[in-house]
Amino acid sequence: MASVSVDEAMRRAVALAARGLGATSPNPVVGCVLLDPDGEVVGEGFHAYAGGPHAEIVALAQAGKRARGGTAVVTLEPCDHTGRTGPCSHALIAAGVSRVVVAVPDPNPVASGGAATLRAAGIEVTLGVRTEEAEAGNIAWLTSMRRGWPYLIWKYAATLDGRSAAADGTSMWITSEAARTDVHALRGTVDAVLAGVGTVLADDPRLTARNLRDGTLAIRQPLRVVVDSSGRTPADARVRDGAARTWVATAAEVGAGPDGRVDLAALLAELHHRGVRAALLEGGPTLAGAFLAAGLVDRIVGYVAPKLLGAGPTALLDAGVSTIADAIDLEITDVTRVGPDLRITALPRKREA
Amino acid sequence: MASVSVDEAMRRAVALAARGLGATSPNPVVGCVLLDPDGEVVGEGFHAYAGGPHAEIVALAQAGKRARGGTAVVTLEPCDHTGRTGPCSHALIAAGVSRVVVAVPDPNPVASGGAATLRAAGIEVTLGVRTEEAEAGNIAWLTSMRRGWPYLIWKYAATLDGRSAAADGTSMWITSEAARTDVHALRGTVDAVLAGVGTVLADDPRLTARNLRDGTLAIRQPLRVVVDSSGRTPADARVRDGAARTWVATAAEVGAGPDGRVDLAALLAELHHRGVRAALLEGGPTLAGAFLAAGLVDRIVGYVAPKLLGAGPTALLDAGVSTIADAIDLEITDVTRVGPDLRITALPRKREA
Ligand SMILES: NC(=O)c1ccc[n+]([C@@H]2O[C@H](COP(=O)([O-])OP(=O)(O)OC[C@H]3O[C@@H](n4cnc5c(N)ncnc54)[C@H](OP(=O)(O)O)[C@@H]3O)[C@@H](O)[C@H]2O)c1
Ligand SMILES: NC(=O)c1ccc[n+]([C@@H]2O[C@H](COP(=O)([O-])OP(=O)(O)OC[C@H]3O[C@@H](n4cnc5c(N)ncnc54)[C@H](OP(=O)(O)O)[C@@H]3O)[C@@H](O)[C@H]2O)c1
Repeated sequence: MASVSVDEAMRRAVALAARGLGATSPNPVVGCVLLDPDGEVVGEGFHAYAGGPHAEIVALAQAGKRARGGTAVVTLEPCDHTGRTGPCSHALIAAGVSRVVVAVPDPNPVASGGAATLRAAGIEVTLGVRTEEAEAGNIAWLTSMRRGWPYLIWKYAATLDGRSAAADGTSMWITSEAARTDVHALRGTVDAVLAGVGTVLADDPRLTARNLRDGTLAIRQPLRVVVDSSGRTPADARVRDGAARTWVATAAEVGAGPDGRVDLAALLAELHHRGVRAALLEGGPTLAGAFLAAGLVDRIVGYVAPKLLGAGPTALLDAGVSTIADAIDLEITDVTRVGPDLRITALPRKREA
Repeated sequence: MASVSVDEAMRRAVALAARGLGATSPNPVVGCVLLDPDGEVVGEGFHAYAGGPHAEIVALAQAGKRARGGTAVVTLEPCDHTGRTGPCSHALIAAGVSRVVVAVPDPNPVASGGAATLRAAGIEVTLGVRTEEAEAGNIAWLTSMRRGWPYLIWKYAATLDGRSAAADGTSMWITSEAARTDVHALRGTVDAVLAGVGTVLADDPRLTARNLRDGTLAIRQPLRVVVDSSGRTPADARVRDGAARTWVATAAEVGAGPDGRVDLAALLAELHHRGVRAALLEGGPTLAGAFLAAGLVDRIVGYVAPKLLGAGPTALLDAGVSTIADAIDLEITDVTRVGPDLRITALPRKREA
């Protein structure tokens, strides 16, 4: 096999890492490529699921003796602590690699220090190769670790004129089966799905990740969270079925904001504490408005159906904006057709305090 | 010069035709390419403005004697009547062409018959080359001629959540300068711009096609039409300035529908009578809803700003839809970024009666 450059190996490691997306929480996704002294690929691995072996361990096992004197190219700084697996820093030292190339340093105070340990053992450590790509691939985990609360994606579905239901309340189905399938795939990449009690009372949704055709549940289900200040979620609500774990988050348990409702920042902190790194806010309009007004949304994914209604509830309410100069500014990062619908992805622009 | 195929010549003729868009009403856009007997291009022309020479005449003048025995490739059936210029059919016969290739037959009962006249003179006439492209290039004119009322484009501007202003009514500016410049270009391609009296009273718009930076007016201005049942448009409204012609269309003049408001079908018929082939409906939400409910909109162009408001007036009201099954179904035909905004073009799907 031809030798590859460290840059090319990192490109490959980032791609490998992405294969773990949605299954590694509360851990990050990580990819690793091992090169022998001639630059030949002798091992590859990624972190496939929480509790499973780390990317470096998988790659080292594949490489065996051929790792000696080689280079480990890894998307995230190797861990330095003994969790469910031993520290990767020690494993790399034991395998005798002479260089470790890292895209992104580990922001996790518990696990970081790998680079220092490696350097102390005489291994050359290079930081900063393809950092942007590796950051993007781990954005939810990195963001949540850096600031202590989950990366929050607000998803909504609406007509081209911004309605999420018709005047009589009917909304099945605004978007196409293709769009709804896409939403289920999105649910499969997060650790928790959030909805307001208003949506639970109105629509009685399941909030599981499943196959829309035959109803089969995905193996890994996100935690279902109902934001419900006074605990109005009915005992027989579908969201309480046994298909996945459910947390009805009340103001009594989480704490209340000045309006007596669930304190959303405290809710996110508690979710982070429970291991949630990426969460999907599925509405409704009131809860979405409250999260947006508080500046707690990291990404917006709108499914826009080629339909007009001219009446009916809107996808968003009360986001704390009363005049155009205070509009929540976004940057549209992607527009993709999903069946007949559009999926519009946008990032809120940072606002001055 | 190398010889070109008839198909290639038609592709070129369609492109030439497009250069007249916005300046030829009440005439269509037409392009013509003349090939000599060896298939070499010896003349090209398009209809550049109403009252100017037809495409065939321009191309024949360029070709001179070299047209003899050649082929005229033209996007629309050559006219057969004496309007401001003589019939093109006669000019082609006089020039001695031996074949005429036409993309689309002329639906205009006054001008059609050109193919028959040419055939009677012994000229071979072929119909149907690149018809779809030529139809698309002339869609507004063809549609309006076939059914007797203008091709109507509804343009709106809104935030991602479908608001056209904030809660306090402020809306300057929802969309970017790039989007507003695009709207002025769109105005330059139509013969009339329509707005409801509600918009005139609220915003006092000029409704002219102009350069946004220095205010310079475009040479050709669409007719400004205020849909105003009882003539409430103020005498000093900007829309009445001298920058372009203005028609305040009242129920008394046009006729009233069952609700006592301006009869929109009668309004469009009257506009057609006045030579309007393509018209741009610029709102507001009430008038747009009424046109959509009546099935009178042919194309929708939405400028969607990367902003969220969560409150404020919506871009569309009262489109006659109360339940999701009756939603106005569209097909999204184009999504283009215009500055930071999205321009979404959609066509209403035909509804069963
Ligand atoms: N198109 C879409 O994408 C979509 C998605 C979901 C839902 N929907 C529609 O939305 C409708 C329901 O809307 P909704 O606005 O009534 O429900 P919602 O946004 O799901 O829930 C709102 C409720 O959440 C509770 N809540 C708890 N803490 C809150 C806080 N800090 N800020 C704001 N709310 C908080 C409040 O009730 P308590 O104070 O009692 O806790 C509040 O009334 C349904 O008709 C559904 O079909 C549409
Ligand atoms: N975002 C955008 O793209 C956009 C564009 C334009 C306007 N706007 C906003 O829209 C707001 C004005 O909205 P609006 O709904 O009051 O005004 P509108 O839609 O411009 O005008 C509505 C008025 O048109 C008249 N009309 C005449 N014949 C009609 C018919 N057959 N059906 C319906 N209406 C007919 C009616 O008044 P009479 O019965 O008295 O004739 C009606 O009240 C302004 O705030 C403006 O800023 C937004």
